[in-house]
Amino acid sequence: MGFVYDFDHSHPRPPMEMKDLLGGKGANLAEMTSVLSLPVPHGFTISTDACRAYIEDGWPEGLSEEVAGHLERLQERMGRRLGDPADPLLVSVRSGAKFSMPGMMDTVLNLGLNDESVEGLAKQTSDERFAYDSYRRFVQMYGRIVLGISGEALDEPLERARETAGVKTDAEIPAAALRGLVEELKRVVADKTGSPFPQAPEDQLRGAIEAVFSSWNGARAVAYRVRERIPHDLGTAVNVQAMVFGNRDDASGTGVGFTRDPATGAQGAYGDFLVNAQGEDVVAGIRNTEPLSALGDRFPDIYSELMEIFARLEGHYRDMCDTEFTIEQGKLWMLQTRVGKRTGRAALAMAVDMVDDRAIALSHEEAIQRITAEHIDQVLHPQFKDISVTPLTKGLGASPGAAVGAVVFSADEAAEKAASGEKVILVRNETSPEDVHGMLAAEGILTARGGLVSHAAVVARGWGKPAVVGAEQVRINAGAKTFSVSGTTLAEGDVISIDGTTGIVVAGEVELTAAEPPEELSRILSWADEVRGDRLGVRANADNGPDAENARRLGAEGIGLCRTEHMFLGEDRLPIVRRMILAEGSAEEEAALEELRVAQRDDFVQILEAMDSLPVVVRLLDPPLHEFLPDVESLLVKQARQGLSGEEERLLEAAKAWRETNPMLGTRGVRLGVLKPGLYAMQVRALMEAAVRRAKAGGRPIVEVMIPLTVSREELALARSWVEEAIAEAGETDAAGRIEVAIGTMIETPRAALVAGEIAEVADFFSFGTNDLTQMTFGFSRDDVEGRMMNAYLEKGLLPANPFENVDPDGVGRLVAMAVEAGRATRPGLHCGVCGEHGGDPQSIEVFYRAGVDYVSCSPFRVPIARLAAAQSVLAGG
Amino acid sequence: MGFVYDFDHSHPRPPMEMKDLLGGKGANLAEMTSVLSLPVPHGFTISTDACRAYIEDGWPEGLSEEVAGHLERLQERMGRRLGDPADPLLVSVRSGAKFSMPGMMDTVLNLGLNDESVEGLAKQTSDERFAYDSYRRFVQMYGRIVLGISGEALDEPLERARETAGVKTDAEIPAAALRGLVEELKRVVADKTGSPFPQAPEDQLRGAIEAVFSSWNGARAVAYRVRERIPHDLGTAVNVQAMVFGNRDDASGTGVGFTRDPATGAQGAYGDFLVNAQGEDVVAGIRNTEPLSALGDRFPDIYSELMEIFARLEGHYRDMCDTEFTIEQGKLWMLQTRVGKRTGRAALAMAVDMVDDRAIALSHEEAIQRITAEHIDQVLHPQFKDISVTPLTKGLGASPGAAVGAVVFSADEAAEKAASGEKVILVRNETSPEDVHGMLAAEGILTARGGLVSHAAVVARGWGKPAVVGAEQVRINAGAKTFSVSGTTLAEGDVISIDGTTGIVVAGEVELTAAEPPEELSRILSWADEVRGDRLGVRANADNGPDAENARRLGAEGIGLCRTEHMFLGEDRLPIVRRMILAEGSAEEEAALEELRVAQRDDFVQILEAMDSLPVVVRLLDPPLHEFLPDVESLLVKQARQGLSGEEERLLEAAKAWRETNPMLGTRGVRLGVLKPGLYAMQVRALMEAAVRRAKAGGRPIVEVMIPLTVSREELALARSWVEEAIAEAGETDAAGRIEVAIGTMIETPRAALVAGEIAEVADFFSFGTNDLTQMTFGFSRDDVEGRMMNAYLEKGLLPANPFENVDPDGVGRLVAMAVEAGRATRPGLHCGVCGEHGGDPQSIEVFYRAGVDYVSCSPFRVPIARLAAAQSVLAGG
Repeated sequence: MGFVYDFDHSHPRPPMEMKDLLGGKGANLAEMTSVLSLPVPHGFTISTDACRAYIEDGWPEGLSEEVAGHLERLQERMGRRLGDPADPLLVSVRSGAKFSMPGMMDTVLNLGLNDESVEGLAKQTSDERFAYDSYRRFVQMYGRIVLGISGEALDEPLERARETAGVKTDAEIPAAALRGLVEELKRVVADKTGSPFPQAPEDQLRGAIEAVFSSWNGARAVAYRVRERIPHDLGTAVNVQAMVFGNRDDASGTGVGFTRDPATGAQGAYGDFLVNAQGEDVVAGIRNTEPLSALGDRFPDIYSELMEIFARLEGHYRDMCDTEFTIEQGKLWMLQTRVGKRTGRAALAMAVDMVDDRAIALSHEEAIQRITAEHIDQVLHPQFKDISVTPLTKGLGASPGAAVGAVVFSADEAAEKAASGEKVILVRNETSPEDVHGMLAAEGILTARGGLVSHAAVVARGWGKPAVVGAEQVRINAGAKTFSVSGTTLAEGDVISIDGTTGIVVAGEVELTAAEPPEELSRILSWADEVRGDRLGVRANADNGPDAENARRLGAEGIGLCRTEHMFLGEDRLPIVRRMILAEGSAEEEAALEELRVAQRDDFVQILEAMDSLPVVVRLLDPPLHEFLPDVESLLVKQARQGLSGEEERLLEAAKAWRETNPMLGTRGVRLGVLKPGLYAMQVRALMEAAVRRAKAGGRPIVEVMIPLTVSREELALARSWVEEAIAEAGETDAAGRIEVAIGTMIETPRAALVAGEIAEVADFFSFGTNDLTQMTFGFSRDDVEGRMMNAYLEKGLLPANPFENVDPDGVGRLVAMAVEAGRATRPGLHCGVCGEHGGDPQSIEVFYRAGVDYVSCSPFRVPIARLAAAQSVLAGG
Repeated sequence: MGFVYDFDHSHPRPPMEMKDLLGGKGANLAEMTSVLSLPVPHGFTISTDACRAYIEDGWPEGLSEEVAGHLERLQERMGRRLGDPADPLLVSVRSGAKFSMPGMMDTVLNLGLNDESVEGLAKQTSDERFAYDSYRRFVQMYGRIVLGISGEALDEPLERARETAGVKTDAEIPAAALRGLVEELKRVVADKTGSPFPQAPEDQLRGAIEAVFSSWNGARAVAYRVRERIPHDLGTAVNVQAMVFGNRDDASGTGVGFTRDPATGAQGAYGDFLVNAQGEDVVAGIRNTEPLSALGDRFPDIYSELMEIFARLEGHYRDMCDTEFTIEQGKLWMLQTRVGKRTGRAALAMAVDMVDDRAIALSHEEAIQRITAEHIDQVLHPQFKDISVTPLTKGLGASPGAAVGAVVFSADEAAEKAASGEKVILVRNETSPEDVHGMLAAEGILTARGGLVSHAAVVARGWGKPAVVGAEQVRINAGAKTFSVSGTTLAEGDVISIDGTTGIVVAGEVELTAAEPPEELSRILSWADEVRGDRLGVRANADNGPDAENARRLGAEGIGLCRTEHMFLGEDRLPIVRRMILAEGSAEEEAALEELRVAQRDDFVQILEAMDSLPVVVRLLDPPLHEFLPDVESLLVKQARQGLSGEEERLLEAAKAWRETNPMLGTRGVRLGVLKPGLYAMQVRALMEAAVRRAKAGGRPIVEVMIPLTVSREELALARSWVEEAIAEAGETDAAGRIEVAIGTMIETPRAALVAGEIAEVADFFSFGTNDLTQMTFGFSRDDVEGRMMNAYLEKGLLPANPFENVDPDGVGRLVAMAVEAGRATRPGLHCGVCGEHGGDPQSIEVFYRAGVDYVSCSPFRVPIARLAAAQSVLAGG
């Protein structure tokens, strides 16, 4: 066993690869010390094992002795002892988890000071003021973090001291007053805790270590992990390190430095520093920092030493590094390094530059692995320039990118104002097909209700238009044309800003960065395409010609899901669909179907043209019919209030007849086809006519007809027979010989996955509808559980991630893998795709690749991300 | 290959076991001919293989030659030829599927007659009238069945012939007139089909065989199979047999005979016969039949031959046989035999008698296998005496048994009239918790809406009270106190009869058979219990003391599902539950929970007392909260019409807040527990208090706490921690030491089944909730798909059975088996039960037994059936 490791411990592997055990900070400190021999203050790391053991069962047995042993060695090396009244050692105690969680967990500095050692420090530094300022900072920090005393109770004596001294800043308080202040702070501690401020350094250390361990489960940290999808069971390491002081004199200082510009990726060091200051001063922003280049003027030797270190770090990590350093009386100390975070633009530039750089010589594969989905999102969509804006409220980020505009409450207003050049945000409780023209005209969409698969969300993503949905605090007063959020009221015309990535809504205008995909993006993506080859294809979900064109431009290799219901929802189509539903005889029904056939055919022609020579999967009608009918409740209320017209009465009857208790599990998909077989036949006829037309025009249409919601072989065989009949009709024209048609099914019920071997007997291909498969496998209605319930589940760690964002590998992923295997056992080489929302999520893509899927399909704007993630999955899969 | 077998073909196995190939009729004809050497007219069977091949690809290659060969042999044996102008052979062509489908498929008699052979027949029989009557029957039958001419078109010339002859019955038409009639009938045929009536016997035979094949997929046959759950892909065999004539003279006759009384099981032959008649005359009921015993007086030799045959048949089949026989000019011919259908009472009596009978010496195992669920249902519940009643309408048979009573439309009226001794049937659109007192008072329940898991259905089954639900044609006019069904209107007080097994509703009083479980039932069940031993237990679903007592009386070995929500639905409880939901602070909420705790505790005491020393599985609250709130829509309409009270406004707000788009997949079960943890803690406290009270009173409570709707290990671990806390509280009393408690979970989401290995880490037992598991695995909302959609699926053969009645072995059954296996891999010997409705269905019980389940649980009145089915499963499983 062994919970504690000195920074220069000899590990069996490079410490930088041991973040699981040492945490990120500890691993990099060890790497700098033991591998690179950089000037790092001595110290040791208490491993994450210890934290996990502590959380499970309390302070681990033997840990006290281990810490004491390592502390002893540290004291020997430094030639100083904690609490020494003559020349005391001071240490910092810092958290350091596997994944960086900036500001989320606790840190204690200046540990080791007490009533005696403060005098030693004063003597050694010949600076009483410095010593007592350090001590009062320690008492305050320790009191707040370890002893749990409120910050205000500890700030108050400081304020009084400033007043008494008649000064404005802490730095001006004279030494004598600081002595008194320390006494007062200790009194506050005794008062609040019932015990005197701990004087024994070993007690101080134990308290600080426990506080860091416990901060892993602090509310902020938990919330951060939920947001960042970091597992809750990792725990944090604790780093105990000898303190050095950048605030000793004018030959001292502190700074942060990047080996390249993290915002743009430009080559050359980048950073800030402050003379005679401690790290927190740089962060606090009290004094204006100087650019790193100015360091060369003040301390040329140190500057060149630092630049040499930067070069070594970049050469060693083969990536941009982010460092913290301190100069203590003319000596440079490296306090921390890590591979630096960066913007999307910088990530792309750096990756490409490092491939071209002969020294670093990043491979294409490595370059691909440096880029994340968020990086690509950033360069494809406008973003808030300042991410620390104050939110008015927060909803679900439903379609990425940021937008600014004046509030409007109706689609007509949106269209009108947009036509006159005004930028607007459409704010609605929820959207419906009747709002589509307004949604198209608006810069962005904000809804108070609905989840990530609501109408607003799906439509906005299809267009790459920013949208925030389900912002539950938003209360719309349609009559007054205002909306309010817990007290704040905004009226029509007021400007708001929304961020469809984070779900944040801001009152007023936030400055946006432009969306300008840099040229490096296409180089990276071309490398990604090389890597994935034909092992994992990327298609797009698109329902019309313009979307299909856009998808192709973004690199889609076909359409994985063309939802024909969207073709039924246009302003001109809906009345026809309703006529079909209300039809009193088969003649009336057929007439309506006929009108729809002509309309659909023209849609299909456009799509097949845009995707010429590439496969287009057309899903036959999927949603329940009541989605095309008005809301029963509003009609009932209207009926009670003022009565209904004859037409409305008929619509009400139909809406009542078709509504369902659990529409998700009701009469939709192929079930609707079974009850109204004319519907599917009409759709296939329209599709085949379109294909014939394209073939006659010299095109090469590749059609894949997809039957949704199958549960049995027999059901698919029946649907297949309708499709084959309609194809045979089309086959009577010459051009039909040039059309490739396949007939397959969506696997989106658990049963379909379980009997996939049988279903494959009559399916030319499978496409996994992982949205519905997730809903049914978990028994989660997305409309109902996302929000309050899902948040509670994620916070309490009952689920590792929202399964609608990252596909659940153990349940849904397993069903996918079982179905792929069983399907191919029946029909070797069966082509399998994924057309759920997960098709655009990198983590899910990896699960699908491992399950043996041939391609993923996602909304057009996710295609670049999916291409990258597909390559990353192929690389991870070996 | 070979599609055709003579009756005396030498098969590798006893033909009676080859019904798959030969059909039931063919197998028994072959058995009687080749094994028993009984006097059976020669003939041959065209196998079901041929029928399946015909349905798939049309008339099979080589079949014509085979039939011709066998026909040649038949002609040789009989010394007559089809169509012979001198002495013609006539044959019958009859369908015969594996399972008897009486009257559902087609038969052609007298085949082989044509214009020439009819003269031969006349000469041979010296009976011109007989010959021409046979011919005209043949032309009519062939015209209708093979040529598809309407019966009316063919009856009309017959009517005219009667009129012309001035006679009343067909039998009186003189021979000469019959000649003319045949000519006229042939003209009708030529007219309707465009071709003359086929004269060549081989053409006639081919046509008849094809007609029988095709009748397999006739509408009547398909509907029958759906009702009887016979697979659609079996096909029928065709039996071609030399005709004998019971209508030749007074030394001829025909009859049907049973080896025992099929209604009572009484020993001794039973049946009817007619002198000088054909089979159809017996069936048509034109003449009064004589009892079989009278045969002894008329034809003593034949009678004793027949009795000897009956004894041989019973000895050979070791069961009661049902036969058809014909006497032709003093010679006895056996035309058909099969193991006879019987009533429940008869089945029980015969099984027990045949065990006691040394000659037959049925084993207990065999006796058990002779009894079906329907037999037991018949003796446990009253039934319609005459099953051929004319239905007013038909709904879903939701709770077996028949009931008669006066129509009432409200629960209060039901209670009032029942109190004054009147028998009533409660007729409602649907029932709710407020109707429970009226439901209890009524003889039976009829609802216009709702499925087999609706409130009415579940409550009625729990009480064993007949119920028909979802009778969609019923239109209730509450104001007028009437209901109507397509034109017929019944008022309050009118008598109706309902059959909760078949779903049939009859206007007026139908005579009922009494429900008197015969003593043979307990003998059979005790044998069943011996057979199943501890290999498959039977528990009951019961939510209160009286039901638990009843369940124990019927043989339940514990409670597999105690639904605590039913404890929330009483008239006295609902207001408290609503107070809890509406609570504005935690104090108010806790006060309501406290009241519920006390109420629930008393319920639990009763249940634990009734089930002392037997395990009781208590499921914590499962349904979504909105089920305890009023309907949003009615409140909205009321609000629009007349406004709401303050209380109603609050209820409306709460109902809106808690309602969900897909409540089946929403915030319920353990999810509700996560959001309102006080709820589950309260329930466990109430349960443990009850257990302590029972233990103190000297009882032995065995408690199994069950968490519903789990999807992950972490979720169950959290819920388990609440339960353990509440148990620990109770553990502070001495009595608690004597309480056995286990904590487990329902496996009812597909994900739970898929990750059962992990879940078993924190579960002491599993219980499969196969209702919800079926809903989620298929994506079928039972409320929505049962009815129109399910009927369409069953009729079109898209599903082999309604998966809510018979568990789906390939999807749901597979998940159960996977979960049992994975659970036991983690926790060897993990106890697994089933508590869905399927627990009372024999076919499902067999699937569960094969999946390794330890017990099934069902409603108390199904317990006897489940005990029997469990034994049958054990026997089938070996």
